[in-house]
Amino acid sequence: MIPRYSRPDMVAIWSPQTKFRIWYEIEAHACDAQAELGVIPKASAEAVWKARDVEFDVDRIDEIERTTKHDVIAFLTHLAEIIGNEEARFVHQGMTSSDVLDTTFNVQLVRAADILLADMDGLLEALKRRALEHRDTIRIGRSHGIHAEPTTMGLTFARFHAEMKRNRERLETARKEIATGAISGAVGTFANIDPAVEAHVCEKLGLAPEPISTQVIPRDRHAAFFAALGVVASSIENVATEIRHMQRTEVLEAEEFFSKGQKGSSAMPHKRNPVLTENLTGLARLVRMTVVPAMENVALWHERDISHSSVERNIGPDATVTLDFALARLTQVIDRLVIYPDNMIANMNRFRGLVHSQRVLLALTQKGVSREDAYRLVQRNAMKVWEQGADFMEELKADAEVTAALSPAEIEDKFDLGYHTRHVDTIFARVFGDG
Amino acid sequence: MIPRYSRPDMVAIWSPQTKFRIWYEIEAHACDAQAELGVIPKASAEAVWKARDVEFDVDRIDEIERTTKHDVIAFLTHLAEIIGNEEARFVHQGMTSSDVLDTTFNVQLVRAADILLADMDGLLEALKRRALEHRDTIRIGRSHGIHAEPTTMGLTFARFHAEMKRNRERLETARKEIATGAISGAVGTFANIDPAVEAHVCEKLGLAPEPISTQVIPRDRHAAFFAALGVVASSIENVATEIRHMQRTEVLEAEEFFSKGQKGSSAMPHKRNPVLTENLTGLARLVRMTVVPAMENVALWHERDISHSSVERNIGPDATVTLDFALARLTQVIDRLVIYPDNMIANMNRFRGLVHSQRVLLALTQKGVSREDAYRLVQRNAMKVWEQGADFMEELKADAEVTAALSPAEIEDKFDLGYHTRHVDTIFARVFGDG
Amino acid sequence: MIPRYSRPDMVAIWSPQTKFRIWYEIEAHACDAQAELGVIPKASAEAVWKARDVEFDVDRIDEIERTTKHDVIAFLTHLAEIIGNEEARFVHQGMTSSDVLDTTFNVQLVRAADILLADMDGLLEALKRRALEHRDTIRIGRSHGIHAEPTTMGLTFARFHAEMKRNRERLETARKEIATGAISGAVGTFANIDPAVEAHVCEKLGLAPEPISTQVIPRDRHAAFFAALGVVASSIENVATEIRHMQRTEVLEAEEFFSKGQKGSSAMPHKRNPVLTENLTGLARLVRMTVVPAMENVALWHERDISHSSVERNIGPDATVTLDFALARLTQVIDRLVIYPDNMIANMNRFRGLVHSQRVLLALTQKGVSREDAYRLVQRNAMKVWEQGADFMEELKADAEVTAALSPAEIEDKFDLGYHTRHVDTIFARVFGDG
Amino acid sequence: MIPRYSRPDMVAIWSPQTKFRIWYEIEAHACDAQAELGVIPKASAEAVWKARDVEFDVDRIDEIERTTKHDVIAFLTHLAEIIGNEEARFVHQGMTSSDVLDTTFNVQLVRAADILLADMDGLLEALKRRALEHRDTIRIGRSHGIHAEPTTMGLTFARFHAEMKRNRERLETARKEIATGAISGAVGTFANIDPAVEAHVCEKLGLAPEPISTQVIPRDRHAAFFAALGVVASSIENVATEIRHMQRTEVLEAEEFFSKGQKGSSAMPHKRNPVLTENLTGLARLVRMTVVPAMENVALWHERDISHSSVERNIGPDATVTLDFALARLTQVIDRLVIYPDNMIANMNRFRGLVHSQRVLLALTQKGVSREDAYRLVQRNAMKVWEQGADFMEELKADAEVTAALSPAEIEDKFDLGYHTRHVDTIFARVFGDG
Repeated sequence: MIPRYSRPDMVAIWSPQTKFRIWYEIEAHACDAQAELGVIPKASAEAVWKARDVEFDVDRIDEIERTTKHDVIAFLTHLAEIIGNEEARFVHQGMTSSDVLDTTFNVQLVRAADILLADMDGLLEALKRRALEHRDTIRIGRSHGIHAEPTTMGLTFARFHAEMKRNRERLETARKEIATGAISGAVGTFANIDPAVEAHVCEKLGLAPEPISTQVIPRDRHAAFFAALGVVASSIENVATEIRHMQRTEVLEAEEFFSKGQKGSSAMPHKRNPVLTENLTGLARLVRMTVVPAMENVALWHERDISHSSVERNIGPDATVTLDFALARLTQVIDRLVIYPDNMIANMNRFRGLVHSQRVLLALTQKGVSREDAYRLVQRNAMKVWEQGADFMEELKADAEVTAALSPAEIEDKFDLGYHTRHVDTIFARVFGDG
Repeated sequence: MIPRYSRPDMVAIWSPQTKFRIWYEIEAHACDAQAELGVIPKASAEAVWKARDVEFDVDRIDEIERTTKHDVIAFLTHLAEIIGNEEARFVHQGMTSSDVLDTTFNVQLVRAADILLADMDGLLEALKRRALEHRDTIRIGRSHGIHAEPTTMGLTFARFHAEMKRNRERLETARKEIATGAISGAVGTFANIDPAVEAHVCEKLGLAPEPISTQVIPRDRHAAFFAALGVVASSIENVATEIRHMQRTEVLEAEEFFSKGQKGSSAMPHKRNPVLTENLTGLARLVRMTVVPAMENVALWHERDISHSSVERNIGPDATVTLDFALARLTQVIDRLVIYPDNMIANMNRFRGLVHSQRVLLALTQKGVSREDAYRLVQRNAMKVWEQGADFMEELKADAEVTAALSPAEIEDKFDLGYHTRHVDTIFARVFGDG
Repeated sequence: MIPRYSRPDMVAIWSPQTKFRIWYEIEAHACDAQAELGVIPKASAEAVWKARDVEFDVDRIDEIERTTKHDVIAFLTHLAEIIGNEEARFVHQGMTSSDVLDTTFNVQLVRAADILLADMDGLLEALKRRALEHRDTIRIGRSHGIHAEPTTMGLTFARFHAEMKRNRERLETARKEIATGAISGAVGTFANIDPAVEAHVCEKLGLAPEPISTQVIPRDRHAAFFAALGVVASSIENVATEIRHMQRTEVLEAEEFFSKGQKGSSAMPHKRNPVLTENLTGLARLVRMTVVPAMENVALWHERDISHSSVERNIGPDATVTLDFALARLTQVIDRLVIYPDNMIANMNRFRGLVHSQRVLLALTQKGVSREDAYRLVQRNAMKVWEQGADFMEELKADAEVTAALSPAEIEDKFDLGYHTRHVDTIFARVFGDG
Repeated sequence: MIPRYSRPDMVAIWSPQTKFRIWYEIEAHACDAQAELGVIPKASAEAVWKARDVEFDVDRIDEIERTTKHDVIAFLTHLAEIIGNEEARFVHQGMTSSDVLDTTFNVQLVRAADILLADMDGLLEALKRRALEHRDTIRIGRSHGIHAEPTTMGLTFARFHAEMKRNRERLETARKEIATGAISGAVGTFANIDPAVEAHVCEKLGLAPEPISTQVIPRDRHAAFFAALGVVASSIENVATEIRHMQRTEVLEAEEFFSKGQKGSSAMPHKRNPVLTENLTGLARLVRMTVVPAMENVALWHERDISHSSVERNIGPDATVTLDFALARLTQVIDRLVIYPDNMIANMNRFRGLVHSQRVLLALTQKGVSREDAYRLVQRNAMKVWEQGADFMEELKADAEVTAALSPAEIEDKFDLGYHTRHVDTIFARVFGDG
């Protein structure tokens, strides 16, 4: 995570200020529950809420931590400075640091997931708009980077929309995976704290209580969370790769938006680099690299060891901040992508009708020409196009053996692009619904 | 995937025989749909079913492929040899090889997922049985590998159960991810085939039609599938790590089952190595390593390139066969795991009561002793235990300052293990339901 | 590792037959050393060599293993069947299974490395030949997929040569990393065997004795080995990516070789897919995925656990067989790559001279035109080319403000391609030496 | 990279200040070379050195970049503000931004490697000191976590020393890999700049000229660099894992150093957690995760795309800063590790002599007892030890069948620990040399 690839809202989730605020809320809600159970005085629980609107002094907490060498104790000491030592006495009673730390981490991940879901909604909207806009913009479909059959630019946007919609579901599942909290004590037995406290705190924070925890919340949840992010990132790379291809000089079917003022482009007007999508390709790798360590974090020793912690302190912010930035950047790219329908047509026609050779072949066989003969007929005309730059339809019309089977009108019919796009509506209905 | 770590049912899914069988079914169902649409003669469609019970000759197909250099054409040629050239003429009409290949791959993954789900059910059953069996078997909980507070062996099994139940859900989601088929032509436009064919074939194969495909089914689905397998594998490593720790000489709270006849163990009776769980640790790495390439496969060029194919030819079988084997092995390990409750108690009592120091500390403060004094009292008695091998309870009872606050009965009460296990039923109800 | 992507020599290294042969050699050499030390009778050591030319019966060994559940014992039993029980009595004395297994694994990796080095030599030769052949074949250099400045096809081959030469060195280093053997007993203390045995066996096998082993050879060596393979694979992907780009329809500067007989290409003569290099892209992922598990294998418990073994049984053959196949395939691709110099020129001239705009700009400033003015002059002519399809040189010659600074001859000089290639010889000398 | 796991010297390498300083040096040296070639005036080149001792104003450069959207231009503008527009006119002439950026990145990596090498020297020194200190400290060697045969703590340190020495060589190789610079222009042809400039700049910066570059330095170099870091990190995990095992409650053969003042430990004196080595385990994952993206960075499109850049902006600092911190932390852990020789002996003697069963078995067969009988004899006495807590040596001495073959003195001899350590000096000489 570096500022260059960060957006403020996501960064804020991972700030010390936010972290202490969540710690505070956990402690305060826990006090309420403890008071309700009669474990601590109600007045003490209420007193904790005095800090409700206080901004915690991060420097002061750091200062205390330098002495105590313990972050939660440092925070509790600072809290006592705010609400008074007498009232603070009952805060954190029966709890373990991990109760606070692990529940907080999940709150942060839930909030991060909410931002990512909103990002995804924005991307879906952009993709849908562009899909509808270019529903009928014909371009050549390519397999292996080689021309195959016609398709439309709208279908390209539509398939990215479908892919991102699946990613939205994966993000929702991922959010659910880590939307749990645990306040269950040193080894998860609730030895010193009633399960009711956990229930209350989780309810207030919008989490489900972790059915069974140890000192920590089980890390398979987090592995699944980061794995989902890795899939989303890979889809971003997929879209980015398409655009990078479309923008390359010889293809030029689309370009990332260039503001008029952007320098350097007009002396070499062809030199507009798809730097945003190249950047997205790299960002995808950064998100993806967090998946394996998140999986390595699952196997902890007995009721916990702390090997996962340094990993999460990094990949928690890194993966979410980077993915948020990448989704926003991709949305902007899609939104403003400059499409060149004329170049699409020009590219498709590069081989003067050869793209229709398959249909002609099929038509000949349907007219009773043997497959071998049909192939030979198509081939000899195709080779004239390929080698001598002839026009495929003209050659076919001039070939007596061909016209013996197909009339000129029938030949022309095989060159009708509408044939390839007649199911576009059906596909759009599948992707976007009939509305 | 090597025979040593393979089980036959899963291996069979990936055999050429199975593959050709699925190809055949796709082609035959497609013919039915084409006949229904009037595209091909009904009689021809029916004739294809003549091969219904024929075992395809894999060697023959390979032989043809050496000439044609194309696997699908080789298969179709062989099929024609069975049902007759005349009838075979309409098979595969309007279809693209990828229609068959990609749909088949997903059928295989669905079947693999079904086996994995059944494996998981077996594992869940074993974990539940052992959890109930050892619900009250006390052992020391450990954080950082260091004794913390008492827990029970049942809770250990129960948390693995909860984790594997989540993994079951992940496998179900993963199954849904790849339970789609596509028969949509060279670039996904249905140019030469009606969407009704896809609908029919998918219904027959238990798949959903892929809403929008290109030449291929989008690979984000497969990335999500393999990512789920990677999470499951990481959980297997988690359980394996626990058992390896329990079996190490100094701990010896459990052992993998050793048959009486297993050689070499009796001259060195302590030398029973947890080789199965060590093996599972390695297998987990093998499954996990497939996640990143599956994600790298997502970004294909335009409507498809074939870079994903060599990857999938390997990781498809490798990850599913290895995970199947690992789940089955783990189930067997859990089923037969030899538990040593006496050693658990002996380990816990290693420090002659020190494990209860926290409760004594708390009790003192609750009796009005200041936190500093309480700490000092506990500490001076704890150090006698630690340094001189004294018994903690005896020391406390002999300490006048302690007994001024706590009666001998109250001290004894703090050494009651029941305190730590009183919420076990609650946790079990969360994990297994109340039944 | 699947047959489709395998070559026999590398596969043979990993056959049971080869493995048993190496086991045998280790045992036989160890007997010689033991006899030399007087630990076992010389006659017994000599007798072991009776099996020198015997082909071991893998099925028989497997059969014995099913009873003994121990592979090394099964082999030794079979060996005794060949050389006689009496003589076999002293075989393996003082040794531990791992002495044999680990040393054998390293022998296999060394042999694999030797094949990879030979593969690399073949690739280097092909790259050099093509580099020299196309030293002066002008093509446009591209950054971000966008035309930049002219370069030559020879430079492209030359840089791949330089990259692969570095990879050759990495392979040599990797070979050295794992060219060690260990015969040091159960925990590496030589308790039951003299270090002289290790020294003798290693010398005979072409290995260095591992300076300090435990039960196993330390796995950082293997991690480094597989990491080197991962780098080589990534370079293969790099070359493959270049070729895939060159072959895409709109670029068509090169094509993978198509044999005349290869079917299906002539009715759609443009439809020649770069399937070999796409395949190489996937194979690179397969090799690369072995790097992380090899690194996870480094941390073993105490003097050894066996978690690494299942990983290595897979990635040992998989990574080496796949990389061997990939290197050979890439060599073939390079060897036969069809280059289209005319298309290269046509692509470069796509923008009618704009590629030289930078040089014109520079020339103007060198003639004293201010940078702002020079930029304005170049820009207004460039835009005519870009928007109206004019010819850049013609426009410049017709622009009075330009010709005030630059004569027609001077303008023409800026369009000289030789300017861009004048240092090619220097670079070639750096890469290939002056010879 | 987060402050918690960072050390200032390594962080400084990646500061904007350092980066601009290296940019400046490259530009200034390039001017000298250009002046020498007569391309720019000598006075202008000399003038650039006016900024030699100036601290660049990072905020000012950022401010300019917000306008120009180009970091190198922003820097050059700021440089012009310092040395004067007139003199600055010739700076960067004929160069491409990447000439500066890529060469700078390598300078940073070289400096990072130098720090890592110094770190490694510190670690090696600590390991050697502890190895010599505990050369003869007997402990049980363990395979599979199960007691095997005796070894010494010194051998453990020595093998880590040997492993880290290999890592030192890998770091040196890695340093060499990236110690190159390139000043070769937009596509690497030196079109606008003489190779002599590159030669001069590289010499001044301690780099070798990259034999053939494109717009960028080839990324296989960086992949190899990060792979080496990943291997080093895995070895750190290896050492950390050993210590974590040694510190676990039931083993307690060593502990990370605890300062007297460290709170919380004395009321639960057994509760000293190996948090530093657990942390190192996590840090190893963080370094290792950078390997795959570095390898994915190798395949760039044609003469360059910029997908690698965002990856490197993160993993460059992240991997080096984390590894530096980890090496320093590990050195401190090793330096101060508290070793408990008495516990080592107690652990070894846990099974009252059974650890010597193998030697007794061997002795019996050497005395002519058949292997079957010898096994039976050892077994029946071993089982008494295992099941009834008897003492192995006593039982053997009391077994008439045993004493028929071995005298009491001979039996006692088999329990001599010196047998296991008699080759320690040989091994130490291999690792540390004879000095």
